[in-house]
Amino acid sequence: MSSILKSRVRYAPYLNKLRTAEQCVELFKSGQYLGWSGFTGVGAPKVIPSALADHVEKNNLQGQLAFNLFVGASAGPEESRWASNSMILRRSPHQVGKPIAQAINDGRTQFFDKHLSMFPQDLTYGYYTKNKENDLLDYTIIEATAITEDGAIIPGPAVGGTPEMVSCSDKIIIEVNTATPSFEGLHDIDMPINPPFRPPYPHTSTDYKVGVNAVPVDPSKVVAIVESTTKDKVPPNTPSDAVSQGIADHLIEFFKHEVKMGRLPENLHPLQSGIGNIANAVVEGLAKSEFKNLTVWTEVLQDSFLDFFDSGSLDYATATSIRLTEAGFDRFYENWDSFSKKLCLRSQVVSNSPEIIRRLGVIAMNTPVEVDMYAHANSTNVMGSRMLNGLGGSADFLRNAKLSVMHTPSARPSKTDPTGVSCIVPMATHVDQTEHDLDVIVTEQGLADLRGLSPKERAQEIINTVAHPDYKDQLQDYFDRATFYCKKNKTLHEPHILKDAFKMHMNLQENGSMKLDSWDKKF
Amino acid sequence: MSSILKSRVRYAPYLNKLRTAEQCVELFKSGQYLGWSGFTGVGAPKVIPSALADHVEKNNLQGQLAFNLFVGASAGPEESRWASNSMILRRSPHQVGKPIAQAINDGRTQFFDKHLSMFPQDLTYGYYTKNKENDLLDYTIIEATAITEDGAIIPGPAVGGTPEMVSCSDKIIIEVNTATPSFEGLHDIDMPINPPFRPPYPHTSTDYKVGVNAVPVDPSKVVAIVESTTKDKVPPNTPSDAVSQGIADHLIEFFKHEVKMGRLPENLHPLQSGIGNIANAVVEGLAKSEFKNLTVWTEVLQDSFLDFFDSGSLDYATATSIRLTEAGFDRFYENWDSFSKKLCLRSQVVSNSPEIIRRLGVIAMNTPVEVDMYAHANSTNVMGSRMLNGLGGSADFLRNAKLSVMHTPSARPSKTDPTGVSCIVPMATHVDQTEHDLDVIVTEQGLADLRGLSPKERAQEIINTVAHPDYKDQLQDYFDRATFYCKKNKTLHEPHILKDAFKMHMNLQENGSMKLDSWDKKF
Repeated sequence: MSSILKSRVRYAPYLNKLRTAEQCVELFKSGQYLGWSGFTGVGAPKVIPSALADHVEKNNLQGQLAFNLFVGASAGPEESRWASNSMILRRSPHQVGKPIAQAINDGRTQFFDKHLSMFPQDLTYGYYTKNKENDLLDYTIIEATAITEDGAIIPGPAVGGTPEMVSCSDKIIIEVNTATPSFEGLHDIDMPINPPFRPPYPHTSTDYKVGVNAVPVDPSKVVAIVESTTKDKVPPNTPSDAVSQGIADHLIEFFKHEVKMGRLPENLHPLQSGIGNIANAVVEGLAKSEFKNLTVWTEVLQDSFLDFFDSGSLDYATATSIRLTEAGFDRFYENWDSFSKKLCLRSQVVSNSPEIIRRLGVIAMNTPVEVDMYAHANSTNVMGSRMLNGLGGSADFLRNAKLSVMHTPSARPSKTDPTGVSCIVPMATHVDQTEHDLDVIVTEQGLADLRGLSPKERAQEIINTVAHPDYKDQLQDYFDRATFYCKKNKTLHEPHILKDAFKMHMNLQENGSMKLDSWDKKF
Repeated sequence: MSSILKSRVRYAPYLNKLRTAEQCVELFKSGQYLGWSGFTGVGAPKVIPSALADHVEKNNLQGQLAFNLFVGASAGPEESRWASNSMILRRSPHQVGKPIAQAINDGRTQFFDKHLSMFPQDLTYGYYTKNKENDLLDYTIIEATAITEDGAIIPGPAVGGTPEMVSCSDKIIIEVNTATPSFEGLHDIDMPINPPFRPPYPHTSTDYKVGVNAVPVDPSKVVAIVESTTKDKVPPNTPSDAVSQGIADHLIEFFKHEVKMGRLPENLHPLQSGIGNIANAVVEGLAKSEFKNLTVWTEVLQDSFLDFFDSGSLDYATATSIRLTEAGFDRFYENWDSFSKKLCLRSQVVSNSPEIIRRLGVIAMNTPVEVDMYAHANSTNVMGSRMLNGLGGSADFLRNAKLSVMHTPSARPSKTDPTGVSCIVPMATHVDQTEHDLDVIVTEQGLADLRGLSPKERAQEIINTVAHPDYKDQLQDYFDRATFYCKKNKTLHEPHILKDAFKMHMNLQENGSMKLDSWDKKF
């Protein structure tokens, strides 16, 4: 037993349950329901999933030792190994990585894509285990960075769904990660209380804390403690570029206008932003802007937030996970005292709570696959069918925010055409965010403020302001034809011609570009 | 001045502002932004809108005296007259009635369809008035049934968006309705508080009251008081029939099962149900069932609730409006003492609050236009384009409920075929509720429990359980073909063939039925 493990596990009886990861393999039987800690690729268990993948590979058990797997959102590279080895029968509510997306899209894994605020709650309701004899997860494997004197778990860089999983799991295994510092003091934990007994969340500011800093656990449920020395590994961040900086510039101008008109205070409202290069550009832009005393209420923080803190413009940030690169974590640990004063990690039902998001008037910003001219957005399924990652928390935030923003490049390259994919389409092939939810759409071309506009007015604003020049005429043509057709039929609220609505997508499938010769083209 | 008016208006200075409806006409100029009280056809102003319609008809001002009109949801027959006379330039967030739907669908009225919990809030944010010089409504016309000693408004059968409209209106006109009893004591009023100062809603049960029973008003804003003796008139309720009773039976069986499995308590959770014959059948079924001590947290109560109260099974009900027929209102007034103890009307931002709906674990039940095999629902636009009423509160409830139920007949008649319209389709032509929001779909054929199922599993369950027998083979055929196609392309998360997805709808448009000869048919 390492001395560091002994110092981290302050509840002595757990140390009697110490095992190696390999010694845990025998506990797992095919078809079991498993919970993992973790969110957006950090804070997930590592050594036990690796030992199980080793076991499967060594014994050629691909597809024979497979599980129903639940994680708050995405786990790390261990999940990819499981997917490659066909070890995931069923997965909810979110995932990231080529192997798991492949397993979903070739039918090996059944994926249930759910709002991140709702998934842990529905787990406690028994909705994911209703076909089991007991309605509990068989095992939950939690990564901890320390254990308190009463056996409670101090998570690492993610809280996620850990509180709910612990509360509805038959047995618990704890991986204590001694390769990273203890994250003690960084978390604020809400344990689930279900209707009819649920009280209000008291949070009225981003820095509000309920004051519980570890996840309480019934020690009798803990069947094993395993030491882990595997660090979190997330891929390098996509840097911002001209397009994403253009988007950020439009957005920051818009925020200034809203302040000027009295619709936002000078320090704005708490910000939510996602992952990726547009989110990075927006954070970089805000850090350099005149805005001060900003706050953040979001689900995940990435490296760009360290600069945002250091800029002096960001007073406080809260999320359910801090997803940093190795260099980012090193910087974070070196400046622990200053960062940890301005940061709090909560459970995902709190970070993504409609109740709190609406109360605080959050400004939500997310990137879709595509948006249509009437402001429905596809966040998940390319061509209506191919799953990317799932909707994550996008709809938790966009439905409840005071300002709901979708930001996207106006076009993307296809294999043969640098602007072969228009991100503005006549009709989204899958709808995750409805026209009733979005206020603003912004591309590098401009910003469309859709508040209070009817569908026809929205369409014209979107075509004029945010569509790529290569597609403006084609989209206008669809809109004019649909308007003419629906005027005749007196169905003019949201003009569509159903037989043409997906022709741009069909042309992409058949000819490699959304650029149509003619709307009369047959498919 | 009638003695009853004098007794109802307990704030004497208002009586100096007494006018007739006709004397108010001169206040209104074309292009103004107007708020009306009212929700689901009751509690809206009547005599001033009628006087304005008379004025337009008499002077042939159709299309020349027209307004931007905002009501909490739908108003009464006066709104239909306005629509017939092209007096509505712009309308939000909901409407009911042939003339207003016609005006929207022939392009005379720009309609912005918004969640009922959000519309009043967005009005206070200035989102609907951002193109005006001042960002206020020009006039709000409120129907009151009494005025308190300090000039506050006691509404009638609807609270709706009155608190928010009053708070962001330049001038206020009050119609005091003396033909109905005073509703004093039936309301519980929350006035808007906007971020960053908004506190939690304290409601933890259906009968919680904040204790304010009138809408406070700045008396200097009140420019006129008008007596009204026009009663609310709502069309007769559609009675339940074999189909709706079949749906109700399936649902009640399901509730019993959920209680047995421990996922619902014996008195269920607070119920939300909509308007129409399916909602009536469900309420009738519950009143006759073994369930006792039930509660209701909903947006509108209809006549069937009076029987529900009288059955002894319903302990408490709360909504933002009580939409009764004339006979229903008579019965309500005659038994005021007993009904009023078990009933409370709140503002629509509270009745439809995601915060409270999720906290209470509401069971939400709504009727769509159509649902698709992957459980997306269209609540608003027939064939993707023709507006019916708007989404109302459906998404406020379905997104946040503990159990989200869509109930619909499995098929409806077209002009030429008694089952020419399948309510289960391959792809919804408009999406208001996403696959991430619905737990259960029920038709007279059966009940599909979709919790925790992947899209492909959902599709098979929906086809097997709830589709009409006339369409089962055709839907299965689409699903099999799409699965084959997407397996080849490795896009098997949610199988679709975009060129076929709307063929059932196209066949209905061209041939009067969704029954296809072949999926290869060209349109």
